[in-house]
Amino acid sequence: MNDTSAVKDALRRQQIETPSWAYGNSGTRFKVFAQPGVPRTPREKIDDAAQVHRFTGVAPSVAIHIPWDRVDDYAALAAHAKERGVRIGAVNTNVFQDDDYMLGSVTNPDPAVRRKALDQLLEAVDIMDATGSRDLKLWFSDGTNYPGQDDIRDRQDRMAEALAAVYERLGDDQRFLLEYKLFEPAFYTTDLPDWGTSYAHCLKLGPKAQVVVDTGHHAPGTNIEFIVAFLLREGKLGGFDFNSRFYADDDLMVGAADPFQLFRIMYEVVRGGGYDAETGVAFMLDQCHNIEPKIQGQIRSVMNVQEATAKALLVDADALRSAQRSGDVLEANAVFMDAYNTDVRPLLAELREEMGLHPNPVAAYKASGYYERITEERKDGQAAGWGA
Amino acid sequence: MNDTSAVKDALRRQQIETPSWAYGNSGTRFKVFAQPGVPRTPREKIDDAAQVHRFTGVAPSVAIHIPWDRVDDYAALAAHAKERGVRIGAVNTNVFQDDDYMLGSVTNPDPAVRRKALDQLLEAVDIMDATGSRDLKLWFSDGTNYPGQDDIRDRQDRMAEALAAVYERLGDDQRFLLEYKLFEPAFYTTDLPDWGTSYAHCLKLGPKAQVVVDTGHHAPGTNIEFIVAFLLREGKLGGFDFNSRFYADDDLMVGAADPFQLFRIMYEVVRGGGYDAETGVAFMLDQCHNIEPKIQGQIRSVMNVQEATAKALLVDADALRSAQRSGDVLEANAVFMDAYNTDVRPLLAELREEMGLHPNPVAAYKASGYYERITEERKDGQAAGWGA
Amino acid sequence: MNDTSAVKDALRRQQIETPSWAYGNSGTRFKVFAQPGVPRTPREKIDDAAQVHRFTGVAPSVAIHIPWDRVDDYAALAAHAKERGVRIGAVNTNVFQDDDYMLGSVTNPDPAVRRKALDQLLEAVDIMDATGSRDLKLWFSDGTNYPGQDDIRDRQDRMAEALAAVYERLGDDQRFLLEYKLFEPAFYTTDLPDWGTSYAHCLKLGPKAQVVVDTGHHAPGTNIEFIVAFLLREGKLGGFDFNSRFYADDDLMVGAADPFQLFRIMYEVVRGGGYDAETGVAFMLDQCHNIEPKIQGQIRSVMNVQEATAKALLVDADALRSAQRSGDVLEANAVFMDAYNTDVRPLLAELREEMGLHPNPVAAYKASGYYERITEERKDGQAAGWGA
Amino acid sequence: MNDTSAVKDALRRQQIETPSWAYGNSGTRFKVFAQPGVPRTPREKIDDAAQVHRFTGVAPSVAIHIPWDRVDDYAALAAHAKERGVRIGAVNTNVFQDDDYMLGSVTNPDPAVRRKALDQLLEAVDIMDATGSRDLKLWFSDGTNYPGQDDIRDRQDRMAEALAAVYERLGDDQRFLLEYKLFEPAFYTTDLPDWGTSYAHCLKLGPKAQVVVDTGHHAPGTNIEFIVAFLLREGKLGGFDFNSRFYADDDLMVGAADPFQLFRIMYEVVRGGGYDAETGVAFMLDQCHNIEPKIQGQIRSVMNVQEATAKALLVDADALRSAQRSGDVLEANAVFMDAYNTDVRPLLAELREEMGLHPNPVAAYKASGYYERITEERKDGQAAGWGA
Repeated sequence: MNDTSAVKDALRRQQIETPSWAYGNSGTRFKVFAQPGVPRTPREKIDDAAQVHRFTGVAPSVAIHIPWDRVDDYAALAAHAKERGVRIGAVNTNVFQDDDYMLGSVTNPDPAVRRKALDQLLEAVDIMDATGSRDLKLWFSDGTNYPGQDDIRDRQDRMAEALAAVYERLGDDQRFLLEYKLFEPAFYTTDLPDWGTSYAHCLKLGPKAQVVVDTGHHAPGTNIEFIVAFLLREGKLGGFDFNSRFYADDDLMVGAADPFQLFRIMYEVVRGGGYDAETGVAFMLDQCHNIEPKIQGQIRSVMNVQEATAKALLVDADALRSAQRSGDVLEANAVFMDAYNTDVRPLLAELREEMGLHPNPVAAYKASGYYERITEERKDGQAAGWGA
Repeated sequence: MNDTSAVKDALRRQQIETPSWAYGNSGTRFKVFAQPGVPRTPREKIDDAAQVHRFTGVAPSVAIHIPWDRVDDYAALAAHAKERGVRIGAVNTNVFQDDDYMLGSVTNPDPAVRRKALDQLLEAVDIMDATGSRDLKLWFSDGTNYPGQDDIRDRQDRMAEALAAVYERLGDDQRFLLEYKLFEPAFYTTDLPDWGTSYAHCLKLGPKAQVVVDTGHHAPGTNIEFIVAFLLREGKLGGFDFNSRFYADDDLMVGAADPFQLFRIMYEVVRGGGYDAETGVAFMLDQCHNIEPKIQGQIRSVMNVQEATAKALLVDADALRSAQRSGDVLEANAVFMDAYNTDVRPLLAELREEMGLHPNPVAAYKASGYYERITEERKDGQAAGWGA
Repeated sequence: MNDTSAVKDALRRQQIETPSWAYGNSGTRFKVFAQPGVPRTPREKIDDAAQVHRFTGVAPSVAIHIPWDRVDDYAALAAHAKERGVRIGAVNTNVFQDDDYMLGSVTNPDPAVRRKALDQLLEAVDIMDATGSRDLKLWFSDGTNYPGQDDIRDRQDRMAEALAAVYERLGDDQRFLLEYKLFEPAFYTTDLPDWGTSYAHCLKLGPKAQVVVDTGHHAPGTNIEFIVAFLLREGKLGGFDFNSRFYADDDLMVGAADPFQLFRIMYEVVRGGGYDAETGVAFMLDQCHNIEPKIQGQIRSVMNVQEATAKALLVDADALRSAQRSGDVLEANAVFMDAYNTDVRPLLAELREEMGLHPNPVAAYKASGYYERITEERKDGQAAGWGA
Repeated sequence: MNDTSAVKDALRRQQIETPSWAYGNSGTRFKVFAQPGVPRTPREKIDDAAQVHRFTGVAPSVAIHIPWDRVDDYAALAAHAKERGVRIGAVNTNVFQDDDYMLGSVTNPDPAVRRKALDQLLEAVDIMDATGSRDLKLWFSDGTNYPGQDDIRDRQDRMAEALAAVYERLGDDQRFLLEYKLFEPAFYTTDLPDWGTSYAHCLKLGPKAQVVVDTGHHAPGTNIEFIVAFLLREGKLGGFDFNSRFYADDDLMVGAADPFQLFRIMYEVVRGGGYDAETGVAFMLDQCHNIEPKIQGQIRSVMNVQEATAKALLVDADALRSAQRSGDVLEANAVFMDAYNTDVRPLLAELREEMGLHPNPVAAYKASGYYERITEERKDGQAAGWGA
């Protein structure tokens, strides 16, 4: 077991970004269930995100999604965030909801649609300039539904061309994080289906192109912590989109489906130096709450990441290495499991109190009356959702 | 190889039902792309379904979905179908789109919601009485998203209670087909997740409760044709919801992702007597076209089922049995593959001509001008979709 | 949280059976790595199993596998076990290693092979009579590798016939546990591929036929705890074969790959009354240690089951039910997770000391010198393995 | 549809390599079923491989596996092959069957074991020098079974070191093909689990390091043809290990489980220029016949590759491109499926006759009496298997 105060210091520095779209309504293709108190504007989303930070102390930034969070004055939006005690984090691009994008955005067979999509991506960099964001997160729904529908290789050429154009536009302190996903909404091919494809594109472009690992975007049986370890070794892990899933969905609270997996992932982050401030690995949530109260769901998710990180930090590195080097399979596993099986909630409660926070963020949030207030205040108007 | 005229006779008798919702707009949780010419009313959906029958000759019925196809006068709707040369087939129930159903319908922890859902199911039987439908298709989105969210066993009790109440209400010539699905929209448990669960419920209720196999609703690696063979042996296969998928979706045209699997399924249907008229196995499509032109997609799907059936009928049963009995693995497989590798399109073209149809239904449909006509006629008004 | 002393009482009564074959050499198709100190005879396997009981106090029986554990005098073997402080548990049948069984045992197309296999099964009941075993565990490798290779339905008929013959032979206090498995060693069809198939066969035969759930035998994404809950509701859960896996293997220590899943399974056991003595649910390990020291691996596995059981017993049933009934998704999940996140190792250490055991079974075993002794004593002769 | 004579010309040039180990006994971890007539020596394996070429005309080389095919004089072995009308193809290395390799070969925590493994790899290059082989195929069983067992990143460092040493040793006209595999025999991590990892290692080393795609080594749902298209675009596709599977096995005859997938793969090969002689893409079978007669199984496999290739060559490239460019989803898919649905067996029969072969290779082989002869001649001695 490692020194508790060192573990606490590390946890104190942790920063977990929440996404603006987690505060709006969302659902499945079958139904979006509307919830009371949902924000109606980007500012209100930021207000809600600020609550997550207020009670956890480790969620100081909020990612935005363009066009869902389009406003006239991004500097004003950033100022609003600052006033609420948070800042605007990554800018996410949405090039999948115009009718033009039915057959793809940057890989669309139609050059005019590709141009339109690229312009939207470049606009996102303009917004980064205005908000001071470092990261542009690129996820594409591009792909095909049927064998033969389009040419796999041509689409790669188009993807490479678009990525290069965006890369060129990035400022010195900006980068993009390239996301991959096995499938959905495309049903047959996805143009960036796995980490290897994202990695290969990023490698060619240079250091400002990094891979982002969404924990819910893999084939069944994929060893995600291996990918994390590998990308860190290559200097190509830009960050995480955290969430969890039992099947093919990707919107459950991170750590809810397989907390042991989350621990293994966080262990590789620590092991590979990804937790050190200078590596720039971004820890972001990317999950929408379909049936859960939204702010509470984000708080619980942030806590889940904290707990997994605390356990990862508690792994006795010396004992582990010694058992590994001597080939003692069961002892090495036992050292690893010893950290996982530790109940870190008391340690985190202590840490919170040291940080001037309530030891139980969920209870504190519930007691704050915030939910009742927004439910009342936001009765009228159009609740935000994926489409707005 | 079997006698071609016997094969043709069998194919001539084939009936494949198309679903009304395939003609409306549909999509993924990311986007519903609107298409031109989409029906605005249940009658217009029936008009479109009639086109599929017109060009294929084997799609004489159309399934309806309540409340999407709710009308004031179901007898009039049935008369409209008859006038168009088709009939109303299975009645499908939708107890997943009211806000009340966020935590389930018939298995909801709230008894009032359960009652409401049951009433909707009983109303569907009323509609069957009015339309003369034989089959009530029951699919439930009920389940939970998180471990602990609700009690798995209590939910089974509630499911059993609701099914018993519906069973009681069925007329002498009516039955229900109970559908199962691994996951989605529920992310952790689904109350009817696999064929075994549906089968166990149906077995207790009696002969008017049958299992329906949706080809897209299984875990990866599931051998669907085994399930088909097993249910036929037990006299519990009520029918199919056909579609196909590469991953977890279930909306691609049947046979598009794995035509060999469709052949194997149809072979077990033939082998198990499920193709004989008296067994009452219903062959239904259940797939929505997100990016495909809708009528054309249904025509192609019907043709895919026909082709798989034709190949299944061509399997040389005597040669197969002989190789199987003698343990000749490669010869038995070769006999089986010989039928699959046969190009049955000429045979089907011949059959169509004998039936007074154009040999190429897609070409004939395209040439008919129907699509252009509806695109013009249906410019105004609200296009039908999953929500309407 | 539940009363600690009640939890301890329940844990004190727990009985986990270890399998004789876990103590011999085993491996993958690529290689069986020989380990030192491996038993050479069924008696030596029992000696090793007795060590697991000696240090854990909850593993009082050992399953045997015929013909691997074939001896001349089974009563003498039972007496040997008794002398070592354990007893002989379930009898497992092996009808997959004769060359005759290449195309199956009880479902083989050749009636002579089927007869031979059935005779082996009946012999196993003779052995149960001699050893006083209650349970016959039936697992069949039967299936096919290629489409068309044999007739799926005929094989079901043959399976039903063999099971009926075995059922007839069972004594009043005997039963059989019917195992299912998605695939392997059969690559295309398996004659008992899922719980539904086992359940349907058992249901027809009667109360002495029960389903056994091997935790490693499911398709990816299968919700095993649902199956457990369902079978308990039906009175058809005979027991478990515990192990774990990340992919398709089924030989890792139970709880090693997904400890949260094991907890969820044990929760459903407790919830469904399967932990009550009278239900007769058997808790068995079925895992072989390819690279792990074998006795130590079994001790650790027994401890993993204990830890998951302890957590399951700690779930606050009242708080859970209250949250579930009120539809409070996050609170219900939080109550559930609260038990899982508890570190139960101190409680188990206490319990062991109350039972007169060392609080740390692995450390105590290592310190006992047993491993060094058998390594020395068993240098000569033929180590036991799957083939002997 | 493309010009038939051009298609035939392309098919005439096809070369498919069979593996020496396919002719020996093999099985699952449960049982190796012995077959009559199995070779006892590397020469006899070559004799059998020569039969496959004799009847198909497109299998002129045979891969060998060291140490399974270790002989004193490799030049003599090569001369024997030449005399039989074939040549020695890729050299495969086996660093997974010594007891030393229990915890890995080149990534073993013990430096002495790593050295031993590397020496074996370098010996394989010596053998290539002697046989004139161009390709060294590297597959490693290296990985871990338990979380924490060894350090993922350290193992990558060791892998990189070993690969660099082998790369250095390669002659000017030699290369290595680096294989990846999701899992098995390692159960938790595999050191080269996916194409991305192999690709990244090969990219750093240079043009003589290429990725080999084993069609059976992917996670469920992986789009293999995408990988093929991507690697061809990058100039990094070294070749194929063909086989097929329904679940996690990888030993069924290629094309047996999903012939449509094989077609899609071969289409991408053709599309990406991988079928052109100068690209050096190697088409190899890697499958063992557990219950199938071995030579016949290889002949059928070669034919399956031929059929898929023929269909791929028949895709009407102009019509496809035109439909793709215009965004006509169903037409593009229809053009693609038109080729797949064509029965190419008559065309291949014609081609064989033009090549002086019997139109039906399986029938010709069966009629040749070869199987009866080897069954008689090879009665004595030790049949070859994976261990010998």
